[in-house]
Amino acid sequence: MKVLGVLGSPHKTGGSAQLLLAALKGAEREGAKTELVSVYDGEVKPCIGCIHDEEPQCKFPCIFEDYGKIILEKIYEADGIIFSTPIYWFAPSGQLKNLIDRMTSLENMVAYGEPSYLEGKVVGAISVGADEGGAWVGGYIITTMTSMGAIVPPWGIAYSHKAEKAIYDNKALMDAINIGILTARMIARLKGIPADLTFVYDIDLLETIRKEVILKLGLITPGREDYGKRIVKKSGI
Amino acid sequence: MKVLGVLGSPHKTGGSAQLLLAALKGAEREGAKTELVSVYDGEVKPCIGCIHDEEPQCKFPCIFEDYGKIILEKIYEADGIIFSTPIYWFAPSGQLKNLIDRMTSLENMVAYGEPSYLEGKVVGAISVGADEGGAWVGGYIITTMTSMGAIVPPWGIAYSHKAEKAIYDNKALMDAINIGILTARMIARLKGIPADLTFVYDIDLLETIRKEVILKLGLITPGREDYGKRIVKKSGI
Amino acid sequence: MKVLGVLGSPHKTGGSAQLLLAALKGAEREGAKTELVSVYDGEVKPCIGCIHDEEPQCKFPCIFEDYGKIILEKIYEADGIIFSTPIYWFAPSGQLKNLIDRMTSLENMVAYGEPSYLEGKVVGAISVGADEGGAWVGGYIITTMTSMGAIVPPWGIAYSHKAEKAIYDNKALMDAINIGILTARMIARLKGIPADLTFVYDIDLLETIRKEVILKLGLITPGREDYGKRIVKKSGI
Amino acid sequence: MKVLGVLGSPHKTGGSAQLLLAALKGAEREGAKTELVSVYDGEVKPCIGCIHDEEPQCKFPCIFEDYGKIILEKIYEADGIIFSTPIYWFAPSGQLKNLIDRMTSLENMVAYGEPSYLEGKVVGAISVGADEGGAWVGGYIITTMTSMGAIVPPWGIAYSHKAEKAIYDNKALMDAINIGILTARMIARLKGIPADLTFVYDIDLLETIRKEVILKLGLITPGREDYGKRIVKKSGI
Repeated sequence: MKVLGVLGSPHKTGGSAQLLLAALKGAEREGAKTELVSVYDGEVKPCIGCIHDEEPQCKFPCIFEDYGKIILEKIYEADGIIFSTPIYWFAPSGQLKNLIDRMTSLENMVAYGEPSYLEGKVVGAISVGADEGGAWVGGYIITTMTSMGAIVPPWGIAYSHKAEKAIYDNKALMDAINIGILTARMIARLKGIPADLTFVYDIDLLETIRKEVILKLGLITPGREDYGKRIVKKSGI
Repeated sequence: MKVLGVLGSPHKTGGSAQLLLAALKGAEREGAKTELVSVYDGEVKPCIGCIHDEEPQCKFPCIFEDYGKIILEKIYEADGIIFSTPIYWFAPSGQLKNLIDRMTSLENMVAYGEPSYLEGKVVGAISVGADEGGAWVGGYIITTMTSMGAIVPPWGIAYSHKAEKAIYDNKALMDAINIGILTARMIARLKGIPADLTFVYDIDLLETIRKEVILKLGLITPGREDYGKRIVKKSGI
Repeated sequence: MKVLGVLGSPHKTGGSAQLLLAALKGAEREGAKTELVSVYDGEVKPCIGCIHDEEPQCKFPCIFEDYGKIILEKIYEADGIIFSTPIYWFAPSGQLKNLIDRMTSLENMVAYGEPSYLEGKVVGAISVGADEGGAWVGGYIITTMTSMGAIVPPWGIAYSHKAEKAIYDNKALMDAINIGILTARMIARLKGIPADLTFVYDIDLLETIRKEVILKLGLITPGREDYGKRIVKKSGI
Repeated sequence: MKVLGVLGSPHKTGGSAQLLLAALKGAEREGAKTELVSVYDGEVKPCIGCIHDEEPQCKFPCIFEDYGKIILEKIYEADGIIFSTPIYWFAPSGQLKNLIDRMTSLENMVAYGEPSYLEGKVVGAISVGADEGGAWVGGYIITTMTSMGAIVPPWGIAYSHKAEKAIYDNKALMDAINIGILTARMIARLKGIPADLTFVYDIDLLETIRKEVILKLGLITPGREDYGKRIVKKSGI
């Protein structure tokens, strides 16, 4: 059971990195093997839309020999994928969007008589910013992923406005951990292994994972203004 | 295995009704018991946001005694829900939105120490219009549903711009049938019953269901300008 | 110069009412005559999509004799419209959506050889919630309005997550006041009257309008946790 | 009066290029000087979010010395900007998104005591694909632009699903031409020059501009299946 975290941020220790790491730690507790890659760790050339060329070449693997290709291969091999992006103007970062555009090479296998290579994979989405747009970003990513054939688990999006303090945003942190847990459990269920798909409220787990993330990323503990709020799952209304 | 179709259209035989019926017929082939309800068949009072009152009453069942309540009960009892709405200005119809707002009563059980009553249900979305907006509408609905705890199956959204001729839009029809099939199969898989989650291309099935829908809704067979196109799953790029 | 405020909330003194009132007070300072109506003050029947009937009747005035019709007439007479809605699942309230659907009767005059009755009106959008979705809601409303022929002024959307404390959300309050000011100034400019379209930072104006809104709505002054923050226009990145 | 066309497509003669050229020709008829640049004509490095660094450097000009910087300077100098992008998974191309992210350097001048450098510019958006998403893409772009301080003219978005045949999509072509005309006229009005802001229906103008675009881009005239349809402004309902 492999869960891949795809980071869309140039900041290695920022809010979207923090919540992604927390999600992966959630998945690990469910027995998943995890890996984290960042779209900023190498070149991700922009898609050239060759699917509309007279002789389309859009199939896996994508024609470009760059870091994007390496990430696409990891996506291909994963059972679950968790995207985490900074909110850049109500949308994923352009660099992550380049990768998503290039994922067409996985989906477009349908034009070659095969299923989409995303089909049946389980996908969640996290976004972090200092301003609005998290729901729009998360909604955008899962809409694209279901349109490539992926499955969205319960509570499949999480977001925070706390920017580099996202790790202290209890609601967002609990949501992110659940994306990890529920992605892993959904993979298990699809493999026929019993697993509960109920949202997990567990303050001890939250504190433990928070500490692990802080330690791992070398975060300096800031003022605690957002810390210790009661964890409540807020309704969207 | 119960799959509920929720129609958001005032037109009983229009495009969104046609594709919803096709989806339900897809689900029936997988052994689901289905039912179709329309938000226009009775009053659906607008949500009054009592969740923000000093003494919130937002829990299931919703306080209003109207047709909306009856639909909410059917949603509660279903294993899967397929929404189908006309595209009214890039969004679901206001009447369907009223129902979605009222679904807060199901989700907000989390404030009463219970799981969301949507948790683990499988949900897909269909939208039909004469203009743009289908992806936005579908994306909106599944974003809201995952945020209430529901699961989105592979290929969870379908849309057509063919308005009242949607039943002759082969791509959209195949997509809608798959929403029915894959919703039912996802429910089965979650119950531990083996079921393939691959997109189904089956021109015979498509033609059979098309005829059933035309017969059931009493549609007059129009000119065939959209009919008989090769079924291809088009990439979003 | 008439600016109409359309409230989409059942709460007369809630966050979306607060910021809408603030926006209208901004517009009044620029010489506009303002009025505030709420979609919850009467019945707004859902649109029945008669535009797709064999004999379409979709023209102004809309066929329904209800409170929605009265609001549509006020929209018709206004030079500017400011919508303010609670964020109900990342979207306007269903009741407001019903009104927006019914605004088709104004726009669809294009089918009768006239310009859209929205053409050239100036429109802004405010949204308030306890959770995410403000950018999505605002974006949705202005996308629909430009597609009906309206003009969006600079900084045409504002949002707050402070729910019933939105009046103490300085950034959102300054944004809302600017929607009022800039809507009025844009109307003036279009009439050939000189007017500056620069975002107004004015802490005195903000405090004055805040007090007026609190007094007008009879708000009890809450704890000041959000009060007095430095006003900064935050980038969306 | 300068209107800049920003192309987000790798295809120089594809649908988004066709409609962008048509829009610019519309603007030229209103006296605008126009220029077309493509984000694929050079490198547009991804934004590194330095706005969140301890010592933020996010101001105009952006720190990167690349082709993106040249485009940002052209945006800075323009009175109006028309974006035209292929629809890549319901959103602008990643390469265009990189440019939009980098436009933060123009907007973030507000952090340095200046107005946003986008403030008061007039912006429209065109998108073209083979599948859905045009309204979402257009809505996304104008939402971001109003949030940077730009003005959206009446009928500010246009879209086509005709891909490389977009020039034969009469509705989209008339819409695109209007974006050019109305962007130019809005600029004029803001400068105090009288100009009508009514949507222009003009079949002769449409045919003339179509021919000019076909000639300029060297398009081979295809089968006329989409050609000659009655021009109607379709309602979004």
